[in-house]
Amino acid sequence: MNPKRYLPILQWLPGYGRATLGSDLLAAVIVTIMLIPQSLAYAMLAGLPPEVGLYASIAPLVVYAVFGTSRTLSVGPVAVVSLMTAAAIGQIAPQGTPEYLGAALVLALMSGLMLTLMGVARLGFLANFLSHPVISGFITASGLIIAASQLKHVLGVEAGGHNLLELLLGLAGSLGQVNAPTLAIGLSVLAFLYAARRWLKSALVRLGVPGRPADMLTKAAPILAVAVTTLVTWRYGLDERGVAVVGAVPAGLPPLTLPGVDSGLWSQLFVAALLISIVGFVESVSVGQTLAAKRRQRIDPDQELVGLGTSNIAASFTGGMPVTGGFARSVVNFDAGAETPAAGAFTAVGIAVAALLLTPLIAYLPIATLAATIIVAVLSLVDIPAIRRTWAYSRSDFAAMLATIAVTLVVGVESGIMAGVGLSLALHLYRTSRPHSAVVGLVPGSEHFRNVERHTVETDPRLAILRVDESLYFANARYLEDTVMALAARQPGLAHIVLACQAVNVIDASALESLEAINARLKDSGVALHLAEVKGPVMDRLQHTEFCHEMTGKVFLSTFDAWQEPRGESDGSLSRRCAELQMGATLDSPIDDSTHPHPRMH
Amino acid sequence: MNPKRYLPILQWLPGYGRATLGSDLLAAVIVTIMLIPQSLAYAMLAGLPPEVGLYASIAPLVVYAVFGTSRTLSVGPVAVVSLMTAAAIGQIAPQGTPEYLGAALVLALMSGLMLTLMGVARLGFLANFLSHPVISGFITASGLIIAASQLKHVLGVEAGGHNLLELLLGLAGSLGQVNAPTLAIGLSVLAFLYAARRWLKSALVRLGVPGRPADMLTKAAPILAVAVTTLVTWRYGLDERGVAVVGAVPAGLPPLTLPGVDSGLWSQLFVAALLISIVGFVESVSVGQTLAAKRRQRIDPDQELVGLGTSNIAASFTGGMPVTGGFARSVVNFDAGAETPAAGAFTAVGIAVAALLLTPLIAYLPIATLAATIIVAVLSLVDIPAIRRTWAYSRSDFAAMLATIAVTLVVGVESGIMAGVGLSLALHLYRTSRPHSAVVGLVPGSEHFRNVERHTVETDPRLAILRVDESLYFANARYLEDTVMALAARQPGLAHIVLACQAVNVIDASALESLEAINARLKDSGVALHLAEVKGPVMDRLQHTEFCHEMTGKVFLSTFDAWQEPRGESDGSLSRRCAELQMGATLDSPIDDSTHPHPRMH
Repeated sequence: MNPKRYLPILQWLPGYGRATLGSDLLAAVIVTIMLIPQSLAYAMLAGLPPEVGLYASIAPLVVYAVFGTSRTLSVGPVAVVSLMTAAAIGQIAPQGTPEYLGAALVLALMSGLMLTLMGVARLGFLANFLSHPVISGFITASGLIIAASQLKHVLGVEAGGHNLLELLLGLAGSLGQVNAPTLAIGLSVLAFLYAARRWLKSALVRLGVPGRPADMLTKAAPILAVAVTTLVTWRYGLDERGVAVVGAVPAGLPPLTLPGVDSGLWSQLFVAALLISIVGFVESVSVGQTLAAKRRQRIDPDQELVGLGTSNIAASFTGGMPVTGGFARSVVNFDAGAETPAAGAFTAVGIAVAALLLTPLIAYLPIATLAATIIVAVLSLVDIPAIRRTWAYSRSDFAAMLATIAVTLVVGVESGIMAGVGLSLALHLYRTSRPHSAVVGLVPGSEHFRNVERHTVETDPRLAILRVDESLYFANARYLEDTVMALAARQPGLAHIVLACQAVNVIDASALESLEAINARLKDSGVALHLAEVKGPVMDRLQHTEFCHEMTGKVFLSTFDAWQEPRGESDGSLSRRCAELQMGATLDSPIDDSTHPHPRMH
Repeated sequence: MNPKRYLPILQWLPGYGRATLGSDLLAAVIVTIMLIPQSLAYAMLAGLPPEVGLYASIAPLVVYAVFGTSRTLSVGPVAVVSLMTAAAIGQIAPQGTPEYLGAALVLALMSGLMLTLMGVARLGFLANFLSHPVISGFITASGLIIAASQLKHVLGVEAGGHNLLELLLGLAGSLGQVNAPTLAIGLSVLAFLYAARRWLKSALVRLGVPGRPADMLTKAAPILAVAVTTLVTWRYGLDERGVAVVGAVPAGLPPLTLPGVDSGLWSQLFVAALLISIVGFVESVSVGQTLAAKRRQRIDPDQELVGLGTSNIAASFTGGMPVTGGFARSVVNFDAGAETPAAGAFTAVGIAVAALLLTPLIAYLPIATLAATIIVAVLSLVDIPAIRRTWAYSRSDFAAMLATIAVTLVVGVESGIMAGVGLSLALHLYRTSRPHSAVVGLVPGSEHFRNVERHTVETDPRLAILRVDESLYFANARYLEDTVMALAARQPGLAHIVLACQAVNVIDASALESLEAINARLKDSGVALHLAEVKGPVMDRLQHTEFCHEMTGKVFLSTFDAWQEPRGESDGSLSRRCAELQMGATLDSPIDDSTHPHPRMH
């Protein structure tokens, strides 16, 4: 056991020097400025008090620096996970109650334990079942729901709703109560942030600011909006004119909290915790990998699970909420020059200082400002071109994406993900259950075989060669039987059927029984069954089966051999009966893992 | 629309002649003799009155003759489906109540509608997800449970239980109340049937009876046991000495029944009906295919669904129970010379005559006789060699089989099937999520590439060729990223990575995004990504993607080209940049659906 694998901090801490310290400190300052409004906003999105967002941005970052493998990932509250948190714990208790807060801690703990366990058990591959179209559709739909859920804060009205339709209807019904000062603040911040995102960087560059600082300044726009709107609200007493503000936030370091261990609550939150874990992990690991590759570094997905898991456990014991690696923040961290996870630990110190000293200042921070921050941030999650691209590339991927979006918007986040995963699995299985196969014939003057329906090729009424373009397993075993038997029924003079297996990576027990059935049925009708181009690992298994004994035909090295020999044009030296294989005849070179067994080589 | 396809009776009825009639009549007589005790016994197994078994062997057979495509399948009650019926409706109402009978009708109707709908919607492929090891394990476990559930009748005791353990414990606890005459009858019948199965045929052959009639006589042993034990029980008044008998059975044709349409009941029975449909269909279609192939006939699985579906609907309206094609009976029907489904219709007439005239005679038929008939029949379902074979062939198939057996025995039939299907899908997905891949090198003096770890091959520190032995889809997309990036990280001098795609049958949208990510990350680290041997249908799709534009490398016809050109040993005429492909450069012959794109051919 290599301690550096399980404690990645040991990889970089011993060699930590002054130059790295400088880079990390600078990145930490910039990320802290960006994280303060984000952590407040995402806590609000999750229906939690603002300080919870700050707390979730302290201990988890320190823990991630110890256990995480990405050098630049910025852990903390993120939009989609906050939305999922709200959806999950909203079913447990009403917002503002101690039960609601407690459920957030339990959710973070469960998600942390699940992630850690998945990492230790090397179950990171589970995240693979969230296909790209499903995750992309889910994030787009989440972005729309989050934006819709924040509009009420920009308008200064009361409205509820758990899905897009309810949210929009709720807003429509409350348009009469719009609070003008709130709307003014909300729209100004929206316009400012949108403009900053759109034009600030190029404007700064035109003013002579170098590219990277200009970028950093642009990313600091939200903190400017926070500062200005807080000042204005305080100066003009707008909170007394109906502008909702954050209010008194306790100053101080994160409290020590003990998540509950009520088994009822745990089982209620189980599915939500699992989905939050997987979605958070997928998001985080793809950011981490993208950034690591830019510097030719590697991250270890299984250790990442441990890193994110322990971060969430830390969040649950320090008054936090579920966290993961955030996309925008990580990019900023990377661009600002962070070189090691120490940058994250320094960010934690920055946020801790903010929690100690700055909280009195944000009492007058308008909720509308935070809502506008969220809206501008999440609208970039809505990825319409991805939908169009998926439609163009693959209808079945598009179907999974559309199902995810529709169910997420209409029913909810958990159902949306599950519908997408279910449909993409079902479509994948459906596709492999009816694999592409082709009857092939010899291209004249060559040793190559092509689809008889697409090319002018030689065929022989006594012999049919069927190429199967898929591994043979239970879902398509019967389809293979049907295809072969239909072929035999169609060609009455047939004496030989060859299955060309170059694309067959596996033959499972069901497919083996189908091959046995095919062999027996073909035998009853006087047709021999041959195999050609069977891969090494597949042949290794077949050799010890009854099928191999009972097979009426032979195993040919190449399709060309299978074309010649049964028709009496070859001496048969390049084929073997299975029985011979089992008698110990060595066939090392003909039947191995090579890509192209080819007569020339032997 | 071809009426012969949807009404298969039109295929054989017009040409029906006297010779065929003779063969079919003979087969019908033999099957009737076999079916009478079976239908009584399987009705009892399902917890239903004996006449229900007879009723289920009349109308369904006639309807199957119209809609079914197998010439020799014998439809009616079968052991496994009867067990599943008992398990399903046992949860609705206690045996002997009108609700229990009604639930059996509803189950038959639901199963009939499901099968018919699946047939019309061509959803027969759904049955493929029941893998051979799962169905084999399920049938073995069912055989054990059925045998255990019938032991109490042989012993003449009262005992209950829903799984093997409960059944055996129940029996153990009631051994004190064994009824001696019942046990005598039960053991005699068991011994007689076992002996008949084992030795009767060869004895008859030795006595000069030809093989086929000897076989038929052997199959008639149960009716002999029924006749003899009924006579003995009646003659010696054994029913008054504690021998449980069938009792009064109403004489007459099947009643017209109307299955209930209570939505609560329907939703309670939904899963059971679906599983019964699929298990029944899988059993039936495999018998049908095996027999059809022996005479070079074909059955149409989708039309078979309609045939079995309408048979079950007919059962539900004529006082029956769920039915399907029985293995042993169909083989007897085939061997007895049945040539068309008319044999089934004649069998129905035979059973109808029995229902009209013979029912008074079976009042004294001991339950122990029927139980012994069932036990001998189902023990042949227990297939231990299949378990051993599966273990030897594939550990993952064995795991699915074992899970099915264990859960079926310990929990129940429905859970058993679902556990098996779930596990086999999960294992399949797990396997394809970590596909076999190999870094390959050039076999000296050839154009062939093999695994560098297994063979002495040429490699180049600047170029790595990775062969992926699986279609690329969401479950393995990230694994591909990891594999490629690990390869790049391992070989610092690398300038080119080639993915050899001859075993890649599909690249879905997730895998495409992974390829984009790989391309971008490799670009960041100064490595070009090339593809080789991309199949036609896969390339068709890739051509219109952004990835194709952004790809840093080229698409090579063959791995050998990919080996030569980046290293400056070729003129590049056999590769194309994706951009060129999209500009309209025709590449018909290099990139098509052929198995072996090869330079020689162009």
